[in-house]
Amino acid sequence: MTEDVRMERDTFGEIAVPNARLWGAQTQRSLQNFKISTEKQSPELITALAVIKRAAAEVNLGLGVLDEQKARAIMQAADEIIDGKHPDEFPLAVWQTGSGTQTNMNLNEVIANRASELLGGERGEARKVHPNDDVNRGQSSNDVFPTAMHVAAADAIVKHLLPALKTLRDTLDGKAKAFTDVVKIGRTHLQDATPLTLGQEFSGYVAQLEHGIRHVESALPHLYELAQGGTAVGTGLNAHPNFADGVAAAIGKLTGLPFVSAPNKFEVMAAADALVFAHGALKTVAASLNKIANDIRWLASGPRCGLGELSIPENEPGSSIMPGKVNPTQSEALTMLCAQVFGNDVAVNIGGASGNFELNVFRPMIAHNVLQSVRLLADGAHSFNDNCAAGIEPNHERIDTLLNESLMLVTALNPHIGYDKAAQIAKKAHKEGTTLKASALALGYLTEQQFDEWVRPKDMVGRTA
Amino acid sequence: MTEDVRMERDTFGEIAVPNARLWGAQTQRSLQNFKISTEKQSPELITALAVIKRAAAEVNLGLGVLDEQKARAIMQAADEIIDGKHPDEFPLAVWQTGSGTQTNMNLNEVIANRASELLGGERGEARKVHPNDDVNRGQSSNDVFPTAMHVAAADAIVKHLLPALKTLRDTLDGKAKAFTDVVKIGRTHLQDATPLTLGQEFSGYVAQLEHGIRHVESALPHLYELAQGGTAVGTGLNAHPNFADGVAAAIGKLTGLPFVSAPNKFEVMAAADALVFAHGALKTVAASLNKIANDIRWLASGPRCGLGELSIPENEPGSSIMPGKVNPTQSEALTMLCAQVFGNDVAVNIGGASGNFELNVFRPMIAHNVLQSVRLLADGAHSFNDNCAAGIEPNHERIDTLLNESLMLVTALNPHIGYDKAAQIAKKAHKEGTTLKASALALGYLTEQQFDEWVRPKDMVGRTA
Amino acid sequence: MTEDVRMERDTFGEIAVPNARLWGAQTQRSLQNFKISTEKQSPELITALAVIKRAAAEVNLGLGVLDEQKARAIMQAADEIIDGKHPDEFPLAVWQTGSGTQTNMNLNEVIANRASELLGGERGEARKVHPNDDVNRGQSSNDVFPTAMHVAAADAIVKHLLPALKTLRDTLDGKAKAFTDVVKIGRTHLQDATPLTLGQEFSGYVAQLEHGIRHVESALPHLYELAQGGTAVGTGLNAHPNFADGVAAAIGKLTGLPFVSAPNKFEVMAAADALVFAHGALKTVAASLNKIANDIRWLASGPRCGLGELSIPENEPGSSIMPGKVNPTQSEALTMLCAQVFGNDVAVNIGGASGNFELNVFRPMIAHNVLQSVRLLADGAHSFNDNCAAGIEPNHERIDTLLNESLMLVTALNPHIGYDKAAQIAKKAHKEGTTLKASALALGYLTEQQFDEWVRPKDMVGRTA
Amino acid sequence: MTEDVRMERDTFGEIAVPNARLWGAQTQRSLQNFKISTEKQSPELITALAVIKRAAAEVNLGLGVLDEQKARAIMQAADEIIDGKHPDEFPLAVWQTGSGTQTNMNLNEVIANRASELLGGERGEARKVHPNDDVNRGQSSNDVFPTAMHVAAADAIVKHLLPALKTLRDTLDGKAKAFTDVVKIGRTHLQDATPLTLGQEFSGYVAQLEHGIRHVESALPHLYELAQGGTAVGTGLNAHPNFADGVAAAIGKLTGLPFVSAPNKFEVMAAADALVFAHGALKTVAASLNKIANDIRWLASGPRCGLGELSIPENEPGSSIMPGKVNPTQSEALTMLCAQVFGNDVAVNIGGASGNFELNVFRPMIAHNVLQSVRLLADGAHSFNDNCAAGIEPNHERIDTLLNESLMLVTALNPHIGYDKAAQIAKKAHKEGTTLKASALALGYLTEQQFDEWVRPKDMVGRTA
Repeated sequence: MTEDVRMERDTFGEIAVPNARLWGAQTQRSLQNFKISTEKQSPELITALAVIKRAAAEVNLGLGVLDEQKARAIMQAADEIIDGKHPDEFPLAVWQTGSGTQTNMNLNEVIANRASELLGGERGEARKVHPNDDVNRGQSSNDVFPTAMHVAAADAIVKHLLPALKTLRDTLDGKAKAFTDVVKIGRTHLQDATPLTLGQEFSGYVAQLEHGIRHVESALPHLYELAQGGTAVGTGLNAHPNFADGVAAAIGKLTGLPFVSAPNKFEVMAAADALVFAHGALKTVAASLNKIANDIRWLASGPRCGLGELSIPENEPGSSIMPGKVNPTQSEALTMLCAQVFGNDVAVNIGGASGNFELNVFRPMIAHNVLQSVRLLADGAHSFNDNCAAGIEPNHERIDTLLNESLMLVTALNPHIGYDKAAQIAKKAHKEGTTLKASALALGYLTEQQFDEWVRPKDMVGRTA
Repeated sequence: MTEDVRMERDTFGEIAVPNARLWGAQTQRSLQNFKISTEKQSPELITALAVIKRAAAEVNLGLGVLDEQKARAIMQAADEIIDGKHPDEFPLAVWQTGSGTQTNMNLNEVIANRASELLGGERGEARKVHPNDDVNRGQSSNDVFPTAMHVAAADAIVKHLLPALKTLRDTLDGKAKAFTDVVKIGRTHLQDATPLTLGQEFSGYVAQLEHGIRHVESALPHLYELAQGGTAVGTGLNAHPNFADGVAAAIGKLTGLPFVSAPNKFEVMAAADALVFAHGALKTVAASLNKIANDIRWLASGPRCGLGELSIPENEPGSSIMPGKVNPTQSEALTMLCAQVFGNDVAVNIGGASGNFELNVFRPMIAHNVLQSVRLLADGAHSFNDNCAAGIEPNHERIDTLLNESLMLVTALNPHIGYDKAAQIAKKAHKEGTTLKASALALGYLTEQQFDEWVRPKDMVGRTA
Repeated sequence: MTEDVRMERDTFGEIAVPNARLWGAQTQRSLQNFKISTEKQSPELITALAVIKRAAAEVNLGLGVLDEQKARAIMQAADEIIDGKHPDEFPLAVWQTGSGTQTNMNLNEVIANRASELLGGERGEARKVHPNDDVNRGQSSNDVFPTAMHVAAADAIVKHLLPALKTLRDTLDGKAKAFTDVVKIGRTHLQDATPLTLGQEFSGYVAQLEHGIRHVESALPHLYELAQGGTAVGTGLNAHPNFADGVAAAIGKLTGLPFVSAPNKFEVMAAADALVFAHGALKTVAASLNKIANDIRWLASGPRCGLGELSIPENEPGSSIMPGKVNPTQSEALTMLCAQVFGNDVAVNIGGASGNFELNVFRPMIAHNVLQSVRLLADGAHSFNDNCAAGIEPNHERIDTLLNESLMLVTALNPHIGYDKAAQIAKKAHKEGTTLKASALALGYLTEQQFDEWVRPKDMVGRTA
Repeated sequence: MTEDVRMERDTFGEIAVPNARLWGAQTQRSLQNFKISTEKQSPELITALAVIKRAAAEVNLGLGVLDEQKARAIMQAADEIIDGKHPDEFPLAVWQTGSGTQTNMNLNEVIANRASELLGGERGEARKVHPNDDVNRGQSSNDVFPTAMHVAAADAIVKHLLPALKTLRDTLDGKAKAFTDVVKIGRTHLQDATPLTLGQEFSGYVAQLEHGIRHVESALPHLYELAQGGTAVGTGLNAHPNFADGVAAAIGKLTGLPFVSAPNKFEVMAAADALVFAHGALKTVAASLNKIANDIRWLASGPRCGLGELSIPENEPGSSIMPGKVNPTQSEALTMLCAQVFGNDVAVNIGGASGNFELNVFRPMIAHNVLQSVRLLADGAHSFNDNCAAGIEPNHERIDTLLNESLMLVTALNPHIGYDKAAQIAKKAHKEGTTLKASALALGYLTEQQFDEWVRPKDMVGRTA
């Protein structure tokens, strides 16, 4: 109540800000006007904004439109943010203005105050660096925020998601190769089907992830197109003509990613299509991971009353009441987060479809969902890889038992005796609880020798990868 | 690195836990096994779990199956959590086991250690209260967690969401009454239509919220049914026969809400239908709020190149580049969070549809989304109410200008001269840029006196509420 | 090309219409302007529109604003449509104007031409009944179409969906009672858990449907509120003051459902909240049916390599290559259509949230999805009931085998020896592949007599419904 | 009732089939077992299946595993289907077995009977060609149906969707070029912003579609991978080793598209990721079209009480009650179908995520949604192009009036007098209802000459595309 405050000012007048904080009037105003839930702007987004501010100062310096001292101070302050030195200075909610203006101003204000201090000045109204005229020079929230969304998303995808997916793919590929000789019953419609190898089954997962990685990569080129330089409505008003390309290059250097200035600024500011499409790739990966996680928990179901073909690592006690229970918790976490990604996808779609004229004002919500989905899939794939996939082992005895009991080995007889007779054999064996061979011989459709020659599981798994 | 730790133990063996923390082995194990994103179990859920633990101890004491000293200590420890005294003791991710077992154990461990201390004992292995045998007595995560989800959701709906919706409804109802004489142009298909009063327009919003409140209320009875007493699979194994009813009653007393023991425990544990349906009501409210927020920002669009019929409060500077710009930021926050609620709805649906046999294991994800949606809608309605709706004012001059220019007043002529002739009048006026009256007289379909008598906007708005 | 046509006319001029058809200029224009995909307006909606037209003519007659001869002819023509006598006269796409105006005009035109013929007149411009001035008298598409949506949805829910759900509930309830003594292994996390009866398991499904029926019923009151009488923007301009109540009553009589005139016409025309909420109930039912269908196909998985606890009816050959294969096809159809309902829900949400000012113009799309979902769930429940649920039988031998192999019976020992020792017993048995009893005795935690007394599956299933 | 029938037989026994129909026992059985709603398998899918059957017969002939006479007859019968000569022979519901087996058998049966007739034989049991052993030779529904989904989707995308998108892009590009000198007010947050040209605004739409086309194209390579040759579970059991590549090549020739045999058959049969990803591109296009359609209807809102900057073609009367009303119906159809595509996306995601082991059994539902979305977007884009976009014209007078009234031209002063003073000027003008210049001069921040030199709308629109 008696908190130590200073007065900051914006075009709306004065407002008290905690002295301990670097932010200014507009950040403070947003805090007071948007007391909505607990979701804050993502750290990835804050970092991306700081990268932009740093790049802009550097370019403005080069273009001669910003004083060197100020520019250097801005760059240093931005670097501190990038290095995580001001974690408590970005308190704004996701649920604010739909352009992200208040978070752009949060960055402008923190950097202005910090740069002022670096120059030996004060924080507050007497600061030596102006949030709008200096830090935001040549910029508008309308080009800064979309740029930050692209930078943050591309960076998180390239540096976190893709490596996580590749690690999981490699682990599963190792398993596929290790399991190449494990012949097992196939299952379609949850019903017994013709055999395949466990290696083949896992090779399907590997192929899913291979495609998934390619799908995600195909979303990058559009994300690499940056809005910066479009300023308020895409025309670039008040920005130097070389500013757009310069900033894209500077951001590219800072991140190591091949960003370019968007050839059409109106599209990238008025819409959010690059992120809608990127999330379309993310949800595809979620569909893949969901299938993989489900298969593995079903194959590991039991220990005695399920399928029981796989053993997965036991990582923790499974039940607060049933002693000794071990559950497929990594699969559960993964399938839950895939459901979240499917939900996030809808939020992103609605936001992306709802731009009007020169601006899409669902940006903080879209950023929140895209970055959350990337984080969920990257972390989820890592966790599943380390705590489950890497330790999967086949239960050979159980696999063999099931394989030999199956009736669907009868399919091997089709080319020899035709579909209809083969069906009779399987149905008779099912009805009477006997083996296929007994049923086949009883029906007199082939000899024992023929049966043994034609029905060999190992010969039924083909060469197809 | 040299952190002060103690060794805790579960059925998987020993594990080091920070000495400063009350949690135990299973919490610690979960922290290490599920490093996935930043979403933690919601505070509302933690509180609900503490309420359950307190109620269970009280009932177990009454049933004579728990030592009095232990029971009292458990109740006191639970009360401390309810009172918010241990905010840092519940660090687990949403993305963990799908039954929420690890968070149930987190509560059990924190309460056991804290209760032990309250009894003068230690925290850790030598504790005087056992997490499973005492704190979790007669319970399973499988009934505790669904119970907590119902308690947290019902509580947040009754105590936060419904009051927020009622406040907004009352504000808009006040506006509807205040605007009862403001005749304005109606708009359908975004095109000029027949007139209505601004009060009528706002009365539609009030009716939407009225219905929304009723829809949300209709979801409560199912939420009031609690799983507690079902234990592991719904049969109530190891729980006293009077435990279920006793706990529901005790929770009812603690929360002031009419909870009952679910008549069928299998449904409430294996499915999450009560929450799926409740979220169906939440998304309906989101549809209403989205419509209201959109209308208001459109009616306030301008100041000079939009519709401009309403003024909304100016709360902050709107642009980092365009001086003097004021934006409908409360509408933007509200529409963004409505999009999120629509996304959350899909996640909840997928989770709710994905139970298997005796348990749904998408619970922490479902809880996360339901509680987030309640929070978003409640806080969003409050923020919109206080920072926008309460300050809406009509721009009378602009409203009158538009009304008098409209061509759709021609509709009043239908009963007098028929639809086809009326259409001719309107089309001619539109084409030639003249007034309706001039066009009507030029076509000779009626006299000036008839026109003035028949085309009176104030007479066209009817009596319909 | 040489098709026999006549010229019809609207305010846009003349247009050729096939002579064989009763529709007029605006229907024809819509056909030519909206060649989009194959989805047509639902038959349920066309019938509801005809019901409205009939009711309106009757009320207008009673109010003295429509000539008796015309009114009678309109009513007779509408009755013919209701009776299905003009199935080829309603060719318009879902994807047309968002108010459904063109389909309202389709009804107006067909009825006007048919009524003219009934009065001995022609079809076409010389007709004796006017589509707008007579058939549409006192109406606007803006109140007619929302009314039709409510009438069609409520009717389909009450007469098709609810009976289908009740039939399936009754069938499953019969099974639950028949299976009341079948003790079986429980499964949580897909892992073996403590036992329950098959009857208890099915009672959960029954409880899900019971709640689902109640949820759907809770959506009816809002659907019973009709927009009719609001005309263009909700003010009731050009409609007789008694028209709204009269039409609601007349529709009530025609359908046998308790429709009322909406107390607030602005809400019901500008929004579609009643349908958004109703679809929220539908998606909840989809979540329930998805869970039930999944459980049943998993419990029937095999025949030799799955869970195999249930037998379901064999209705058709399962595979074009694997002879003798039988698949859970009814579960598959049901889960597929549940996925569709979840998809439709999103479309309905977006449409419902997207109204502007006095009108929501996503109506045909919303109607299409709601009516499709009702049809899918009703037909799907019927098909699943008749072709699967009714024929479900337990495989007693398999159920017993699995039950007796399970390790989770150990849970019964918790109250006697504590959770930790019980866990040791289970883990040892699992590791060594022995029985629980052997493991328990080897560890010396209890005597054989105690084991036999404490571990009795039949005593572990409780009394809880 | 006395319908002329013949008896057909499958492994389940005899069943009566209408003599007029070419289908057989399994089709008939499906008709009776799945009376669910009205959605039938898409024509595009039926055609794709016929293409596969034709290709398979050709390849089997070449490999010497199918008798030449039979093969030629099968090819001819398939060609008849491709040519649309048997439209009434494919009556099965979308809601059937999840593998599409019954529709695969529908094709097998129709072709077998028709081929038999072509060979001078009968339809029915005595037919000269066997549905399974001949028509389905080397195939399984499990590889046929996924193959058909890829073929149908790729074909519809390449031949219908992409051309439609390109046509619309070209039309809008033509408008962008024609409107290159039309300077207008920009709008962000629905509020007046700095100016741009109408050509720039439209160039954003063009860029959206350009990117959308590329996004859709990026989905094709995965769709070009075909499952054919995997047979029952992906191993290729019972198919000739050269069959897979041969069929892919033959389908490629028949369709003109570069199909290949999927390098991993397990992935393409067990998952539906290619379609999930493709639909991710479709929903991105929907987001773009939604934005474009919304902008255009808003810019054309009025005629007197809206924004009124554009005129769009008047295609039909807009209201059944308001004479002379013209509505943006093409935008309405387009936004409605975009909402449907967003809904379909969720259904596809759920289906795609729900495969188990060797097979995804949500296939007919996924196919239905993907093909519907392609059709909606292709037809919707065509309709919007022809009936709206092509006829868009600017209302120059209105555009100029709004531009000159705007306060946001003040932004041009930032570089000269700073953001804070510029804001003061705008706020004062807004408050007092005066012009910017009057306000600026009154505040004394610049001379009239400076104002006239610095504030020139035409100079504020930049060079950025």
